[in-house]
Amino acid sequence: MATQGQVITCRAAVAWEANKPLVIEEVQVAPPQAGEVRVKILFTALCHTDAYTWSGKDPEGLFPCILGHEAAGIVESVGEGVTEVQPGDHVIPCYQAECRECKFCKSGKTNLCGKVRAATGVGVMMNDRKSRFSINGKPIYHFMGTSTFSQYTVVHDVSVAKIDPKAPLEKVCLLGCGVPTGLGAVWNTAKVEAGSIVAIFGLGTVGLAVAEGAKAASASRIIGIDIDSNKFDRAKDFGVTEFVNPKDHDKPIQQVLVDLTDGGVDYSFECIGNVSVMRAALECCHKGWGTSVIVGVAASGQEISTRPFQLVTGRVWKGTAFGGFKSRSQVPMLVDKYMKKEIKVDEYITHNLTLPEMNKAFDLLHEGSCLRCVLDMQV
Amino acid sequence: MATQGQVITCRAAVAWEANKPLVIEEVQVAPPQAGEVRVKILFTALCHTDAYTWSGKDPEGLFPCILGHEAAGIVESVGEGVTEVQPGDHVIPCYQAECRECKFCKSGKTNLCGKVRAATGVGVMMNDRKSRFSINGKPIYHFMGTSTFSQYTVVHDVSVAKIDPKAPLEKVCLLGCGVPTGLGAVWNTAKVEAGSIVAIFGLGTVGLAVAEGAKAASASRIIGIDIDSNKFDRAKDFGVTEFVNPKDHDKPIQQVLVDLTDGGVDYSFECIGNVSVMRAALECCHKGWGTSVIVGVAASGQEISTRPFQLVTGRVWKGTAFGGFKSRSQVPMLVDKYMKKEIKVDEYITHNLTLPEMNKAFDLLHEGSCLRCVLDMQV
Repeated sequence: MATQGQVITCRAAVAWEANKPLVIEEVQVAPPQAGEVRVKILFTALCHTDAYTWSGKDPEGLFPCILGHEAAGIVESVGEGVTEVQPGDHVIPCYQAECRECKFCKSGKTNLCGKVRAATGVGVMMNDRKSRFSINGKPIYHFMGTSTFSQYTVVHDVSVAKIDPKAPLEKVCLLGCGVPTGLGAVWNTAKVEAGSIVAIFGLGTVGLAVAEGAKAASASRIIGIDIDSNKFDRAKDFGVTEFVNPKDHDKPIQQVLVDLTDGGVDYSFECIGNVSVMRAALECCHKGWGTSVIVGVAASGQEISTRPFQLVTGRVWKGTAFGGFKSRSQVPMLVDKYMKKEIKVDEYITHNLTLPEMNKAFDLLHEGSCLRCVLDMQV
Repeated sequence: MATQGQVITCRAAVAWEANKPLVIEEVQVAPPQAGEVRVKILFTALCHTDAYTWSGKDPEGLFPCILGHEAAGIVESVGEGVTEVQPGDHVIPCYQAECRECKFCKSGKTNLCGKVRAATGVGVMMNDRKSRFSINGKPIYHFMGTSTFSQYTVVHDVSVAKIDPKAPLEKVCLLGCGVPTGLGAVWNTAKVEAGSIVAIFGLGTVGLAVAEGAKAASASRIIGIDIDSNKFDRAKDFGVTEFVNPKDHDKPIQQVLVDLTDGGVDYSFECIGNVSVMRAALECCHKGWGTSVIVGVAASGQEISTRPFQLVTGRVWKGTAFGGFKSRSQVPMLVDKYMKKEIKVDEYITHNLTLPEMNKAFDLLHEGSCLRCVLDMQV
């Protein structure tokens, strides 16, 4: 506890500007203020959202900043009024907060807590609208309310889930984003029933988690669609039963799927972030009831479109964020499921690196063979 | 029963070509074949779908044809194998069939029976792929499987609902299309809960039926949106509690509604058929749970669009056809509700004319004061 109440100087990967390599810097991390928690990050993974903001295409992106939102660590200290976690607790930072008090949390209909969004959306903390990160007095912005590419970070108390201390942090860090997003898209958003025919567009981490979720929901057919046929072998292990590569067909992919399924799929999931694929995902759904869930995040300004007839004849178009899971309440449950071997996590980790190798980890994201790269942050 | 098995010659309003006045003609109506029912139409109303096909903009429109799909009558005779109705039964023709045997009917998820669609979509009967209407040997196409602008029509047995013989046919003919579409959009498709905030775009018959359905579902606020402020007084009687005319605002209508409702409405309904309004209807929904239902029918080839972020942040985009009601099973129930004064019908009838005045009825459709014009077909 020698650090409690003190500024901590530690290393972090700083994004000084868009599309330039991150720089490992010594940063100063201020103590947590009221309602805040300072967390020692032990392991972080990378996700495409980090790469999207880093690329400069995210209009909300602010620089310099510390990226990262899929991680696990241990509480170092807590600010005034924080009661649900204490120093030493094992935690997963949650970019989607859960305050249990706002209109959204109380609605029972969504996980999109609004309490700290106004601050996390502009890279600061609620309390004083300032950053806790600085380098020689120059503030460095937070990112998604998590900034896990630092050895220490400060998060709002509504943005941190306390988990089973026996869980291996180098694995369960993945439960901070991609895996829950895919599982929850199936379980919470689509509510896939046994016997359903499911189509998954994009077989990266999120798409494979959708497959895993669909298999757990006893879907009868799980059709994986990807332009990289090399991904099929691995996808089988996650539950995909059939594979379609759009490049092998002259017809639009939606028509290929309608033909393959005698009228269309019951549920489809877009896990890429491509608006043309989102349209195909809707239009491959069965008339009368097919439901398409947008999971991928499209680039800013892009739009989806279709003929309204697609909806009037019974298709439903939805989307999901963090798979509809309420973060603080349900991430611990997902950790427990992992500990009971009810959900996979290890299988998504294809690479392990260390904090100084952060830029290499970003390069890996673009390789089809990489699902998740976990970085040891204390090396 | 003198007519049973015989060709009946009667009067009908024939649409010889697109966008030309209908002509009252003597037509020959062949006897019903196996699985068919010949119905003496006593009263028919007009709906915008009749006008849409008549205009020539419907790419599925075929001429010459006999339009009309919102009507009531009495069974004159039945073909071989027809068991559920018999001569003398009071019936409402149903453009949306219900066979209870096909994949759609058995799914329990949709009312979009597919059994006779392949025939009704091209203006003929299933049995021999021919029309039962002719004039001096020249076939006249059926329309929507109903063709109620004729004193006698032939429909498939899966397309006719037997109703309480005590129900006044000059009123309940409206339960063949517009009123159920609006009520069902609320009850079956959106499933509006008590306390919900509802927005209705377009205050014609369907929009008012949505208001009536929302009131019955105990919605707390029912906001009517129309560019004709004259419609508000009447709309109050159907349950609309607030009125917004987009012409009174500089801001986009979706923003006006978001501001008016502290974040957006719980449910919205597009009852016009305008793709720009469909977008506004989605985007005025509350983040996290707002659901928009497309009820209006857009012109062929037009597309809806929005940013996928609207769905990823929890809005849901759906559509409805005949309000999701299973026609043969549920139209009789709606008639019973009317008889018990649980739903309005009389209040939608603003004009009464006779078969020879059919073209005048089409003109009335374009007047804001007209909701439904009912024609006495036997005059």
